[in-house]
Amino acid sequence: MRVLGVDPGTVRMGYGVVEGDGDAMQAVDFGVVTAPPSMELADRLARLYDGLTAVLARHRPDAVAIEEPFVARNVRSAMLVGEARALALLAAARQGVPVRQYSPAEVKLAVTGHGASPKDQVQTMVRLLLRLDAVPQPHDAADALAVAICHARRLNLERVLEGGR
Amino acid sequence: MRVLGVDPGTVRMGYGVVEGDGDAMQAVDFGVVTAPPSMELADRLARLYDGLTAVLARHRPDAVAIEEPFVARNVRSAMLVGEARALALLAAARQGVPVRQYSPAEVKLAVTGHGASPKDQVQTMVRLLLRLDAVPQPHDAADALAVAICHARRLNLERVLEGGR
Repeated sequence: MRVLGVDPGTVRMGYGVVEGDGDAMQAVDFGVVTAPPSMELADRLARLYDGLTAVLARHRPDAVAIEEPFVARNVRSAMLVGEARALALLAAARQGVPVRQYSPAEVKLAVTGHGASPKDQVQTMVRLLLRLDAVPQPHDAADALAVAICHARRLNLERVLEGGR
Repeated sequence: MRVLGVDPGTVRMGYGVVEGDGDAMQAVDFGVVTAPPSMELADRLARLYDGLTAVLARHRPDAVAIEEPFVARNVRSAMLVGEARALALLAAARQGVPVRQYSPAEVKLAVTGHGASPKDQVQTMVRLLLRLDAVPQPHDAADALAVAICHARRLNLERVLEGGR
């Protein structure tokens, strides 16, 4: 099971690919897709969309998981969040990959066991779970790996529960 | 000069194509692209994106104009607005068509001469300017024609001003 996690943004889009069954997992790839903030919005969205599509084409994940920031501070930032999320959803739909969204609390709960863990604790757990030498950089990539881990674990749990019926 | 106007939404996307130089204009096509609300968000976005791309391919406009609702009531609706806008911007960028955004007040000002005109007055002016027998239906399509008229007039004005230098 290969899962692509995405931390959406309209200037930087974090991504992280994990492989595994939810218990034994490894990082296949992670990083950020970026577009210059000076670029026109339409061209910037196209650049980010293309970058994410290239990641999907390269790694052919079985599933995509997107971190959904429910807590946009204001209407302006909520619009940007919506834009970034639309790109990620569209790219996944275009490649025919099922996509699910998780709130930050769900991601934290899945990765650390607590829904209100501080950010550095989540990043440390990402490092430990993926047996990496250091916390993945930049932080958008670490966040994307966290949501990928969250989804891999959820899928694994669902599979176990279905198998137990 | 052919302009495609878009009234973005995540369930219905109004579109209107006008041809002309800002004074003498005619409606080439108008309507709505829709996706069932019951559809998964990712698939719905893909459906709307495809529909808008088909309109762009069919009419090959010189420019795209998007109505930007600045006045989202809350964070939730602002995210939906952002999503819908991202699709329209991305579709235009993908087809290499320059795109501009207008606030509702700018559209009203360009169409009726007043930035705070009521909606039915805008629709009546759209009907008169495009010499249509009735107000275009549904209202999303009329709104899309209004933003197309706004952009056609703005482009015409800019051309006149440049020519006068």
